[in-house]
Amino acid sequence: MPALDPRTERRCRESFARQQAMTTIGASVLSVAAGAVELAMPFSEKLTQQHGFIHAGIVTMLCDTACGFAALSLMPEDAAVLTTEFKVNLLSPAKGDRFVALGRVVRPGRKLMVCLGEVFAEDGGRRKQIALMTASMMVMDTSTGLRD
Amino acid sequence: MPALDPRTERRCRESFARQQAMTTIGASVLSVAAGAVELAMPFSEKLTQQHGFIHAGIVTMLCDTACGFAALSLMPEDAAVLTTEFKVNLLSPAKGDRFVALGRVVRPGRKLMVCLGEVFAEDGGRRKQIALMTASMMVMDTSTGLRD
Amino acid sequence: MPALDPRTERRCRESFARQQAMTTIGASVLSVAAGAVELAMPFSEKLTQQHGFIHAGIVTMLCDTACGFAALSLMPEDAAVLTTEFKVNLLSPAKGDRFVALGRVVRPGRKLMVCLGEVFAEDGGRRKQIALMTASMMVMDTSTGLRD
Amino acid sequence: MPALDPRTERRCRESFARQQAMTTIGASVLSVAAGAVELAMPFSEKLTQQHGFIHAGIVTMLCDTACGFAALSLMPEDAAVLTTEFKVNLLSPAKGDRFVALGRVVRPGRKLMVCLGEVFAEDGGRRKQIALMTASMMVMDTSTGLRD
Repeated sequence: MPALDPRTERRCRESFARQQAMTTIGASVLSVAAGAVELAMPFSEKLTQQHGFIHAGIVTMLCDTACGFAALSLMPEDAAVLTTEFKVNLLSPAKGDRFVALGRVVRPGRKLMVCLGEVFAEDGGRRKQIALMTASMMVMDTSTGLRD
Repeated sequence: MPALDPRTERRCRESFARQQAMTTIGASVLSVAAGAVELAMPFSEKLTQQHGFIHAGIVTMLCDTACGFAALSLMPEDAAVLTTEFKVNLLSPAKGDRFVALGRVVRPGRKLMVCLGEVFAEDGGRRKQIALMTASMMVMDTSTGLRD
Repeated sequence: MPALDPRTERRCRESFARQQAMTTIGASVLSVAAGAVELAMPFSEKLTQQHGFIHAGIVTMLCDTACGFAALSLMPEDAAVLTTEFKVNLLSPAKGDRFVALGRVVRPGRKLMVCLGEVFAEDGGRRKQIALMTASMMVMDTSTGLRD
Repeated sequence: MPALDPRTERRCRESFARQQAMTTIGASVLSVAAGAVELAMPFSEKLTQQHGFIHAGIVTMLCDTACGFAALSLMPEDAAVLTTEFKVNLLSPAKGDRFVALGRVVRPGRKLMVCLGEVFAEDGGRRKQIALMTASMMVMDTSTGLRD
């Protein structure tokens, strides 16, 4: 991976900070590299489904955001990022103290970036992969009115 | 679709009520039929991404839940439902006053149910489809300790 | 669906005729409408997997092609179509005398078209859905050197 | 990865040999390990789409088969494997002399195995990834009448 210049890192972190949904679920940025972003989120009862696990939609949201910023980190300064599709395979129930999502760009196309995302549950000292995502991120130009 | 007996409807609604994540996003049940469930959710700023639209993960969560209960409505009484995978195509940004997700069972297998989900944004009087989901729901027997 | 002009229909049929893979599997065009294309393929032993069913990859190929031409039917004359991703849920084993794939455009975007595909197996007089696809088709401009 | 016993390797190779679709596309087994299978296929004009690239359905077929046998290599002797779903992101057009698909099991569940597949195009001396797959493989017991 090429080194990330400080402006791009700041841009990703500021765009993350504007995501109110990330505040709602208590997510934070662990690391930002060129084409790879890592986010974390603590367990919270208010995010659970009927069996007491974190809802698959929340796991997806964390991972989609990690992938989106991984893509944004490789985009030109005047572009914005928009998810066009993702698929998630849920490997194990989302139980644990903390959840970490790692998004990486697999194919940095000029119009479309393909990302691979992984989510891990940390439970006590152990770490287990709970989800696998593939996603397409569109490079939106400024004529759309969107900005990141 | 066959008629839904009242016990199954109650079971779906009670399982929905145990999902704290649904309370957090303000979701409610619009209708429960055999193999088809409809949920709704109002717009809320705390669920937005950086451009002010509802986060794709939240749209996914609503739709996954609609599909999951559509599947549960066709399962034996002693089974629980678990999502094994889903894919979402995001058709338009999630902007509007209210969002409605409709989940339907396309293939009610004995072990695996395949569902099709659609999410619509209501904006003023207009309604527009914003997401398309396909999902696999596993029929879990009671030996897993899970219950719905 | 708007009516399809004869030039667009001819363009789709000619592009189909250039797909040698379609000849190899014995596929033919059943119908072309604006945003909806139907293809058919007879059973052939040389396309089977180890249990004697048509291979999932062949089912996918037929359905991807139906979706691709459904998208092409709505594109400007100087554009070419390229699949960027698809997902297939296999609902039942592909056994039967003939297989019919129906591809439809769900969201005709300017850059990306989202399609829904269904494949049916015909066995004697009965018809059964065996696969469900969602796909993204990119609108490629002529600067890429591609043509349809 | 644990070592693969010779009986399991033979079983995978024999099941592969029964796939007439693999003969039709000229595919062969490069390697079989516990949870990881590699297949190869030469370029052939009869497998091309309208732009002269190998059809996405053929790329998918090769990758699905690699993933299926990767899953089978970890299954009990009396089980058969059946793909329930896959998603493919097409990263680059499939042009080259030879195509290699690598399927690996990411999550070896008792009922469902989740696999990650990658397809590479070899062109002259260069190698490039052209597709990324995630897939679910069901463990079928003998009561279904299926065998591998």
